[in-house]
Amino acid sequence: MALISPSRRLRRTPFSEGVEAAGAKAYTVYNRMLLPTVFRSVEEDYRHLKNAVQVWDVSVERQVELRGPDAGKLMQMLTPRDLRGMLPGQCASVPLVDETGGMLNDPVMVKLSEDRFWISIADSDLLLWVKGVAQGFRLDVLVDEPDVSPLAVQGPRAEDLVARVFGDSIRDVRFFRFGHFDFMGRDLVVARSGYSKQGGFEIYVDGWDLGMPLWNALMEAGRDLDVHAGCPNLIERIESGLLSYGNDMDRENTPHECGLGRFCNTQTAIGCVGRDALLRVAKDGPTRQIRAIAIEGEAVPLCDRPWPIMAGQSQVGQVTSAAWSPDFETNVAIGMVRMTHWDPFTEVDVLLPGGEVRPATVYAVFWN
Amino acid sequence: MALISPSRRLRRTPFSEGVEAAGAKAYTVYNRMLLPTVFRSVEEDYRHLKNAVQVWDVSVERQVELRGPDAGKLMQMLTPRDLRGMLPGQCASVPLVDETGGMLNDPVMVKLSEDRFWISIADSDLLLWVKGVAQGFRLDVLVDEPDVSPLAVQGPRAEDLVARVFGDSIRDVRFFRFGHFDFMGRDLVVARSGYSKQGGFEIYVDGWDLGMPLWNALMEAGRDLDVHAGCPNLIERIESGLLSYGNDMDRENTPHECGLGRFCNTQTAIGCVGRDALLRVAKDGPTRQIRAIAIEGEAVPLCDRPWPIMAGQSQVGQVTSAAWSPDFETNVAIGMVRMTHWDPFTEVDVLLPGGEVRPATVYAVFWN
Repeated sequence: MALISPSRRLRRTPFSEGVEAAGAKAYTVYNRMLLPTVFRSVEEDYRHLKNAVQVWDVSVERQVELRGPDAGKLMQMLTPRDLRGMLPGQCASVPLVDETGGMLNDPVMVKLSEDRFWISIADSDLLLWVKGVAQGFRLDVLVDEPDVSPLAVQGPRAEDLVARVFGDSIRDVRFFRFGHFDFMGRDLVVARSGYSKQGGFEIYVDGWDLGMPLWNALMEAGRDLDVHAGCPNLIERIESGLLSYGNDMDRENTPHECGLGRFCNTQTAIGCVGRDALLRVAKDGPTRQIRAIAIEGEAVPLCDRPWPIMAGQSQVGQVTSAAWSPDFETNVAIGMVRMTHWDPFTEVDVLLPGGEVRPATVYAVFWN
Repeated sequence: MALISPSRRLRRTPFSEGVEAAGAKAYTVYNRMLLPTVFRSVEEDYRHLKNAVQVWDVSVERQVELRGPDAGKLMQMLTPRDLRGMLPGQCASVPLVDETGGMLNDPVMVKLSEDRFWISIADSDLLLWVKGVAQGFRLDVLVDEPDVSPLAVQGPRAEDLVARVFGDSIRDVRFFRFGHFDFMGRDLVVARSGYSKQGGFEIYVDGWDLGMPLWNALMEAGRDLDVHAGCPNLIERIESGLLSYGNDMDRENTPHECGLGRFCNTQTAIGCVGRDALLRVAKDGPTRQIRAIAIEGEAVPLCDRPWPIMAGQSQVGQVTSAAWSPDFETNVAIGMVRMTHWDPFTEVDVLLPGGEVRPATVYAVFWN
């Protein structure tokens, strides 16, 4: 692993002080901001996430706020998901597409009220697309990045921990719903959501100054729950089939290729700028799709470039995320596979950098 | 310095193999791509850049291509610089602004022909803004990121080196002009430009497969010129007053605040979406502006967050880039300073992290 040169451009977060004190060993850069990737070791962090509770600085999930009379109209222009049934208090996975149906981001939409939304984004400057569209269509809407930094609490003991800080009523918040909770006299949005399958919450920390007080309050309250600083875990997210925008898909891919067809209501999502382009895809289906892939043999290296998936001499896809899974005792991976080879239990080869060929098997479902 | 976790999302470049073999010691992430920051040491790289010639992997300067009948119209919508006089074969610094006049990027525009432009971008997903605007205004234009990765040749011996590879006619290319030159039977755009004040060229490598052959050809041809792999140098760029988008300015700032007023023809840049917002700024002038700042005392640490500039108890600005300059034997810095304190030789204080207060002086011109 190489060193990262610090600069203001790689933004710190309201929780950086806590992350550093907890001994973050490595980072990635996500939305031009620092995201820790390892505390003790990826394997130790993984085991602990599955058994206890972690506090994650996911400030990099920047918010794009839409506010004003045309906010709802604009939100629908961005996604092929039909948003008519969404109520304030709901979160929703919304694939966002350009005019060609290519994925621009795969965020969680937070509907605060009929005329106010947060889009909690993956790694792309979505703000610029939304501002450009709003400007071009002359919509009456404010589009901005507010001073909101999500802090995630993840793991089987997450509910107990947040209840100690925000009160027992937080236990009533259902999956992908949110409520408003008090912290130090300030009103915070807290959703039952997060980038793991271990259960937990995301706190939308509305104000930089609240960052370290909340971090410290959670660490203090969770001492006997074995709370630790953590971060999205490479192994757990692959086992769970949680895609990473920029790794597993990008503008080249449609939502259907990403297995997000269930979030597309292309027929009825009237107004979506990518709707025309997606209508045929929605009808015919994609010709390649995201799949779980088990790669045989010993632990693979970190996947820093696409690894070709081969059937004999033909490339039939690529692996874009991979890690050794201690629990499943195989290399778990995410890849895009052509329809000729995407059926469950299809045997393929994966070409590692350096030329090593590894037998691999395509699966229909992920591990968790 | 912390470690960086590799992933596909942090894209490699056509030259990564050469960069790694040359022993890059640290990187930053820029436009979701790896940019080396140090080879031997920042000081050794600096000395060598000023005395010899370096080859820089600046693939991170991604291109946004505009092509089609409305390409020129769209280009003018993006910038307050009046582009009517620009001819094919010219490069131009063009501040790009949103509808509020806030800087979205400070790229070099390459006018390939009347209906085809490359925008060679700084660190923001400008593609998304341009696509959004083009979509909203229903312009007849293709907007895309082509497979073009700039390779810079910088330093006093740069002209001699590129002449050996591309022929002596490259010596006739004037500053901020470009020509078409042959390499391995392929036509490449080569401009006299680059992110240093030591002179040099940028080769727009049009096709990933040409990357390493060109890298190797330059290294081979420049052996007796003491050619080395290099990268934009923190010390040299600050001495030279070369701003870094995301470090020294962002969407909060107008071009006039960034000292780019000379590139704004706000009265005549008809069509620029930020024109209305900038008319008053153009008339009244900004109330804060980029300045060169010399910070006294021993070498300052790396500037990873804004450092307040104080006049007594009042904050009058912030430093956003700083480094010790061996040649000028002071800490050179770039900061944004309020008009009350921006006159040359104004004495201020700079607050370093940890609370140390350093005397500093504001200058009107940079060092190189």
